Amino acid sequence: MERTKIIETKEKAGKKVSISGWVTTVRDHGQIAFIMLKDRSAYVQCVLNGGLKEPVGEGYVLEIVGEVKERPEKMRNDKIPTGNVEIEVESYKVLNMSKDLPMPLNTDGKNINEEVRLKYRYLDLRRDRMQKILKLRSDYIAAVREELKKREFIEIETPMLTKATKEGARDFIVPSRFNPGKFYALPQSPQQYKQLMMTAGIERYFQFARCIRDEDLRADRGYEHTQIDLEMSFMNQKEVMQTVEDIIKGAVSAVGGRIKEDPFPVINYKEAMEKYGADKFDLRTEEEKKNNVLAFAWVVNFPFFKKVDAGDEAEKRDGKSGWVFTHNPFSSPIPEHLEWHMKGENIGEIVTAQYDLVCNGLEAGGGSIRAHNPEVLKQTFRIMGYSEEEIQESVGHMLEAFELGTPPHGGIGMGLDRQIMLLAGEDSLKETIAFPMTATGKTAVMDAPSPIGKKDLETLHLDVTDKGGSMVDRIKETLDSLGMVYKYMEHEEVRTSEEAAKIRGVDLSTGAKAMVIKSKEYEGKYIMVVIPADRQLDLEKVKNQLEEEFEIAPAKEVEQYTGLKLGSIPPFARLLKMDLYFDKAMYDKETVAFNCGLRTASIIMKGSDLIKAANPDKKSEKLEFAQ
Amino acid sequence: MERTKIIETKEKAGKKVSISGWVTTVRDHGQIAFIMLKDRSAYVQCVLNGGLKEPVGEGYVLEIVGEVKERPEKMRNDKIPTGNVEIEVESYKVLNMSKDLPMPLNTDGKNINEEVRLKYRYLDLRRDRMQKILKLRSDYIAAVREELKKREFIEIETPMLTKATKEGARDFIVPSRFNPGKFYALPQSPQQYKQLMMTAGIERYFQFARCIRDEDLRADRGYEHTQIDLEMSFMNQKEVMQTVEDIIKGAVSAVGGRIKEDPFPVINYKEAMEKYGADKFDLRTEEEKKNNVLAFAWVVNFPFFKKVDAGDEAEKRDGKSGWVFTHNPFSSPIPEHLEWHMKGENIGEIVTAQYDLVCNGLEAGGGSIRAHNPEVLKQTFRIMGYSEEEIQESVGHMLEAFELGTPPHGGIGMGLDRQIMLLAGEDSLKETIAFPMTATGKTAVMDAPSPIGKKDLETLHLDVTDKGGSMVDRIKETLDSLGMVYKYMEHEEVRTSEEAAKIRGVDLSTGAKAMVIKSKEYEGKYIMVVIPADRQLDLEKVKNQLEEEFEIAPAKEVEQYTGLKLGSIPPFARLLKMDLYFDKAMYDKETVAFNCGLRTASIIMKGSDLIKAANPDKKSEKLEFAQ
Repeated sequence: MERTKIIETKEKAGKKVSISGWVTTVRDHGQIAFIMLKDRSAYVQCVLNGGLKEPVGEGYVLEIVGEVKERPEKMRNDKIPTGNVEIEVESYKVLNMSKDLPMPLNTDGKNINEEVRLKYRYLDLRRDRMQKILKLRSDYIAAVREELKKREFIEIETPMLTKATKEGARDFIVPSRFNPGKFYALPQSPQQYKQLMMTAGIERYFQFARCIRDEDLRADRGYEHTQIDLEMSFMNQKEVMQTVEDIIKGAVSAVGGRIKEDPFPVINYKEAMEKYGADKFDLRTEEEKKNNVLAFAWVVNFPFFKKVDAGDEAEKRDGKSGWVFTHNPFSSPIPEHLEWHMKGENIGEIVTAQYDLVCNGLEAGGGSIRAHNPEVLKQTFRIMGYSEEEIQESVGHMLEAFELGTPPHGGIGMGLDRQIMLLAGEDSLKETIAFPMTATGKTAVMDAPSPIGKKDLETLHLDVTDKGGSMVDRIKETLDSLGMVYKYMEHEEVRTSEEAAKIRGVDLSTGAKAMVIKSKEYEGKYIMVVIPADRQLDLEKVKNQLEEEFEIAPAKEVEQYTGLKLGSIPPFARLLKMDLYFDKAMYDKETVAFNCGLRTASIIMKGSDLIKAANPDKKSEKLEFAQ
Repeated sequence: MERTKIIETKEKAGKKVSISGWVTTVRDHGQIAFIMLKDRSAYVQCVLNGGLKEPVGEGYVLEIVGEVKERPEKMRNDKIPTGNVEIEVESYKVLNMSKDLPMPLNTDGKNINEEVRLKYRYLDLRRDRMQKILKLRSDYIAAVREELKKREFIEIETPMLTKATKEGARDFIVPSRFNPGKFYALPQSPQQYKQLMMTAGIERYFQFARCIRDEDLRADRGYEHTQIDLEMSFMNQKEVMQTVEDIIKGAVSAVGGRIKEDPFPVINYKEAMEKYGADKFDLRTEEEKKNNVLAFAWVVNFPFFKKVDAGDEAEKRDGKSGWVFTHNPFSSPIPEHLEWHMKGENIGEIVTAQYDLVCNGLEAGGGSIRAHNPEVLKQTFRIMGYSEEEIQESVGHMLEAFELGTPPHGGIGMGLDRQIMLLAGEDSLKETIAFPMTATGKTAVMDAPSPIGKKDLETLHLDVTDKGGSMVDRIKETLDSLGMVYKYMEHEEVRTSEEAAKIRGVDLSTGAKAMVIKSKEYEGKYIMVVIPADRQLDLEKVKNQLEEEFEIAPAKEVEQYTGLKLGSIPPFARLLKMDLYFDKAMYDKETVAFNCGLRTASIIMKGSDLIKAANPDKKSEKLEFAQ
């Protein structure tokens, strides 16, 4: 018998149907039993006169044959779309059984531990909220494509194995088996390829591009995201912005989204900074926030260059002259400022043909009209202090393409995950991705990254130089080898002791604050002192007790020295090859808690065990560093 | 003035228009000049009374304003769709110039060296043939999506950074910065994720999945391909096949493709082997071949298991019992053979619910109904000789999902590139990909793979063990260091000396055939002898001259020992740490040619130089090995 989708049963009263799906609840009263069955379309109540013939539990997969019965007016269930009917079961077949589910699926899942949700992501996605989000994502992609198709955009896939670029973030690299010491890079975005498509005469390109960046993980950001990636030829800034805006409006309304203002307001960068203190801002009223309205706006007239931030390695590398691009080195100055640009005059005042799309306080996309004239692109790099040789080395292949008939062009890249998050009214990007990473970079369900065989490494001409594992692994190994009991937990990213205490559900005083300090007497000498998280470090006391003057080490130096982010540093200085001192107050702690190398992972354990495992200098018992 | 697409000019006689595009030809007669301008839609002739005001050449990008003039009946150009009109130019603006194009763009490009085509891929794609293919690809993708949408399939993206699997080919791996010694793997296919989506209750999943495999390169195959990837729940084999067939038929006809037989013929594996000697076959008549008709057919009833091929490492690893799966370990046996499967009886006769789609002699897709019952999947691995522990290690996470309410399901993966190749009537997959790899694994346009900095390697806790570069690089370095002149060429894959000579355009006798032979007296001793490619090795002569008995080394051993494919081995035994002997006939060669470590790359050079560079044993001048 052909399968009927459950939603269709509401119009099949009196008919015999075969339905298949998952059991969400079972109530067996002996003489009669009720099963709520769910498929991708809906839920329906099934009635078994005579009770269950064969055991059935939550999560079981059943095929049910029965008659659709109209329910009496009073008995209707308004909560489900098939509430006007029920299925009088003639027979059923268990297509697959289910063990007890490791988490409830009848809630929105937000209170369930992330690790559990992601380990069993294939179950987590079965809950109604996640099904709706996945459907919305698929529908929105289809709607955007529909808008693009109307406008004659052509979809083109660009390579996943490509060359390292300088796009701000770090590249993931892929060793080449046939080329010892050489590597492909995964694409951070298809920026260069899409511009080359314009040279190729494509005129209107799009791609839902998979972008992969080795950025520091945040609570809601993994290494991968999908970008709605567009590029157009023979259009000016206004035309590109109009086209993008029309596409967004068409697609958002196709999936039932509501937009605050049409046309999108266009705001100058300077005005935004003055008015909102940022180039991202939320234009919604409180009412609109409740109703999940999308407040899009454009920000334009950004400065092309800014002074290099001396603390930023990437900016220092790019901005050899002291000037560095603000958004994208491939952008063009606005036509009015082309002359300044070419002459290298008034650099700080040159405005770039950049446009950012913001929505509800977040950046929803960014794009620009590009430099298509090779001299303009060269000049951008000259302004940043590149020599002719360095320019060729960096963008020689692009300059060559620009010398072979590249038309004027511009485009945009928009984060799909973020647009879905906004449309769905969710708070985390992870809720929009089928299989996101955990906060520690593990892939959902699958146990990756994982070690590979020695032989496979040899084939790739590689050797691992540090086989110690991650800091988390090394701390766990230390504790395990000492037979200690501890609680390991993964959580959202925390940056302060206060945030950490809250998320761990323990008192602030429990925290072991590990601080790296720097000798003012010996160049390059760093040590660690550990104090209770509810107290402050007193450098005067440090000086008196250790008979040496120290200062707080700058964040950059700490991160460089330890390889760990500030806020993630564990009180295990020995593993970081540093001297370690505990404040004597640490010796009185029953329980201690600390981040173990990641801002997203903590360990809670006995205070006395920590002292044994971390092994601070013996003097520590008498030392006092905290106010 | 708003831009008019060139194709629209044919209906705008008498109107003033602004058009933009690329100059494909210029004829300047002084008083009058003619420019053929092309945009993405069409070509049109532009007439400049008074000649060129500003220099214009082929490849220049122009914006032209002028009046559309109807051409007199006799003067019409039937070769282009706008042949009924021409543009009387009022003014034009050079939007970008162009240097001389490095290759002609007014041909189909098939006779141009692949290296040049791929280096300048952004120009190569500008030619009409490539524009049509890119458009066809985009249209076909849209048409397939349309068919999928009608049938309520949901698009879901699966991770690019995932876990290594055992899918036959080698994984590309990606080092994890925070986990020394641990690696992600790029997906060879989303097989496991898509099955998990069925556990998640998605019921109908699709993705245009980027699949990346570290397979040996072939002339027309890079490391990446795109797969039309589907999975469905609650359907039997017939229903899945019917759904896939309907999707293909709908999409092919939407882009104007012609299909030979509807419904697709369904042929048993055994019958196919008897009738065609293979499970891929071409059902087209000669006439249909000319007309680019697509002859699809299904092949079904494959054996689930086969005896392990002792020469195949992957099969030996998987088939510990001597039996190994033929297609996919996640497949199910057909219902009629479930009992044999569960009892482990008649293993060689168990038929799997596998279906392959063939088209014009090629495999167009492959899929199956999967085992959704955990015991059935376990039994598949038990038949192959896996212990319970090994089963858990390999597919434990899938078994766990199957114990949590996974419905019956099945699906298919179809190579998009190949379908486009067949639709376009092309011979090479590379013609269907915007930026394919060269035959040596370099990415088009971009110079990847490339070395990365020492510091970046340190961050990843890696060290390169063999800094010698690829064999090609090492040979080139050797020759360069000796100041020798040689011709290096990349070409389609060759496997025999005859193929090589043909593609190099030199006489067969020029070839230097490097043969690895194996001592029958000393275990594990391999040496190389080099003879003219038009002659045969005589092992009797080898024995007499070297006073030791040798045999031809088996292909597997040669490939393992040298790391190179048979047919690619260069006469540089020293680089492979082997003794080297030349046949004396090699000393008379003016010119020699040989593959230099790849089946897709050759070097042609002076014979005397080769002897100097390769440095065979001094006795060689008097030795004779060839018949």
